[in-house]
Amino acid sequence: MKLSEIYLYLKQDISKIEKEIENSIDAQHPVLIQASSHLLKAGGKRIRPVFVLLGAQFGQYDLERVKLVAVPLEMIHMGSLVHDDVIDDAELRRGRKTIKAKWDNRVAMYTGDYMFAKAIEIASQSQEPRLHEILSDAMVEMCIGEVEQIKDQFNADQNLKIYLRRIKRKTALLISVSCELGALIAGADRHIQKCLKRYGYYTGMAFQITDDILDFVGTEKELGKPAGSDLLQGNVTLPALYAMERDAELKNEITHFLESHGTDKVDMNGIISKIKETGAVKDAKIMSDLYLEKANAALEELPDIRAKRALSEIAQYIGDRKF
Amino acid sequence: MKLSEIYLYLKQDISKIEKEIENSIDAQHPVLIQASSHLLKAGGKRIRPVFVLLGAQFGQYDLERVKLVAVPLEMIHMGSLVHDDVIDDAELRRGRKTIKAKWDNRVAMYTGDYMFAKAIEIASQSQEPRLHEILSDAMVEMCIGEVEQIKDQFNADQNLKIYLRRIKRKTALLISVSCELGALIAGADRHIQKCLKRYGYYTGMAFQITDDILDFVGTEKELGKPAGSDLLQGNVTLPALYAMERDAELKNEITHFLESHGTDKVDMNGIISKIKETGAVKDAKIMSDLYLEKANAALEELPDIRAKRALSEIAQYIGDRKF
Repeated sequence: MKLSEIYLYLKQDISKIEKEIENSIDAQHPVLIQASSHLLKAGGKRIRPVFVLLGAQFGQYDLERVKLVAVPLEMIHMGSLVHDDVIDDAELRRGRKTIKAKWDNRVAMYTGDYMFAKAIEIASQSQEPRLHEILSDAMVEMCIGEVEQIKDQFNADQNLKIYLRRIKRKTALLISVSCELGALIAGADRHIQKCLKRYGYYTGMAFQITDDILDFVGTEKELGKPAGSDLLQGNVTLPALYAMERDAELKNEITHFLESHGTDKVDMNGIISKIKETGAVKDAKIMSDLYLEKANAALEELPDIRAKRALSEIAQYIGDRKF
Repeated sequence: MKLSEIYLYLKQDISKIEKEIENSIDAQHPVLIQASSHLLKAGGKRIRPVFVLLGAQFGQYDLERVKLVAVPLEMIHMGSLVHDDVIDDAELRRGRKTIKAKWDNRVAMYTGDYMFAKAIEIASQSQEPRLHEILSDAMVEMCIGEVEQIKDQFNADQNLKIYLRRIKRKTALLISVSCELGALIAGADRHIQKCLKRYGYYTGMAFQITDDILDFVGTEKELGKPAGSDLLQGNVTLPALYAMERDAELKNEITHFLESHGTDKVDMNGIISKIKETGAVKDAKIMSDLYLEKANAALEELPDIRAKRALSEIAQYIGDRKF
């Protein structure tokens, strides 16, 4: 089963989920639509709803119930994207903020808040108490992850453990929860829920590592931003971490740049070449592949239905994706 | 029963609630404590937990259950205060933001997010499904209220309806929900819940109107900020609204100031005197008193227990408070 086939067979339900998200923002306030419309229209892969829908197919699939999980999860993801943008935007304007710009930022912040609150509100239509526990726990962890990322920004003194913990909170957890809650809301067996939760966690880790690799190996056209952007913004990801362990001179160069808080001029293309030379990118890919193997192993105990093959295909796609 | 007596007889339970809030932030991340400690230490009146505790006394009072409502409500309030500060802080630095300042703002934003998420997480320990519905609905409305306030900022073309709807969302709703959920979590009769919800709504409206009056009649020492700060920041509150209806020249002056988006120099003391001369402050007080009468009427059908007298006393206090 190809990825395009997966989307094809989920297409109708994904469209309904998107419509629900649109409506729940639309109904309330024009300013909110304005502030979030670029996100809605940008589309995105809707990967979290896809995981929810697939997870739900291991139980009694009923879209009316499934959407009470799929919509909130996508809205939480969207809310976190809105908040990620808030302060960055301000900086782009180089500190000379007009009142309008200040408003935009405030509106963006409250739009994010609104999406979080609305997500919980929609989830509360389900009478499943564990849903809120799992959902809010994921949100708490995501916030801690964000705070950690800020704290670790431009910090050269990091290690693998810190990195893995950060991407777990930042990315893997919400994907894990998507898979788990899909199964939960459809009343699937507890053991199935657990397998899907594990699958989602491993897949999410591989997804983020791949993202972090692509930031170094992608072209500006593929990425929509210059290669090495993560490092330029002070985020030390796996390829950089590995490379710094292996090349003392390169470590010095990167550390120097980080300690300047990004104010030093830096030859990013040179640094990227040197990172590749250390074999760090390849080793990051090996790490990602290890997580994908674990993801596939987590699928083994699941019944052999179409959704299982789809999940396996998604893992494969994540390992191979080029942008 | 004096207000100080109310606090005295609730003191022990309020302390426990405060301790719980502290612990739930403390346990997770040092940066989060740092970012929120000024709020925790500032103390505040903890008016929402007070309402929850009093509401719960109309049912089976059990602090272990009551805290699952009181802690989240105070944390939601605190989270919203943190978010209110985010962009204002940035502005204080006059646009010349250091990287550190940018971090501080981001950390503050995610600290607010964290508090919201943690609030939901704590509430999810209760198995009461309506709790989440009511809580998340209040959060949604609060966010819409914030967005509306931003939209209405420096907008001279407002009216009573817009103002009342805004303070309902901004303040009254969360106080209303505090009273209601206290009764709900203690298993009080549905009718009692409804009376308390109404009481809280009317009291919250009066509370905010009084706040808005004090901003004009208080001294800088009492307020901790210059009188007329609301208007200076472009927020048109009830006294200003009434005054603009009555004095065309004053309306012109205020409109002019608002349309300059606060950049025009303005003689705020002069404006405050003129607002008072129109009788607008007195009429705003009459409006507040009307809400308090309604609050007391909502109490009438409640059983005559100590908590009822305390609620009545609080309404009285809100009407009389000087700062």
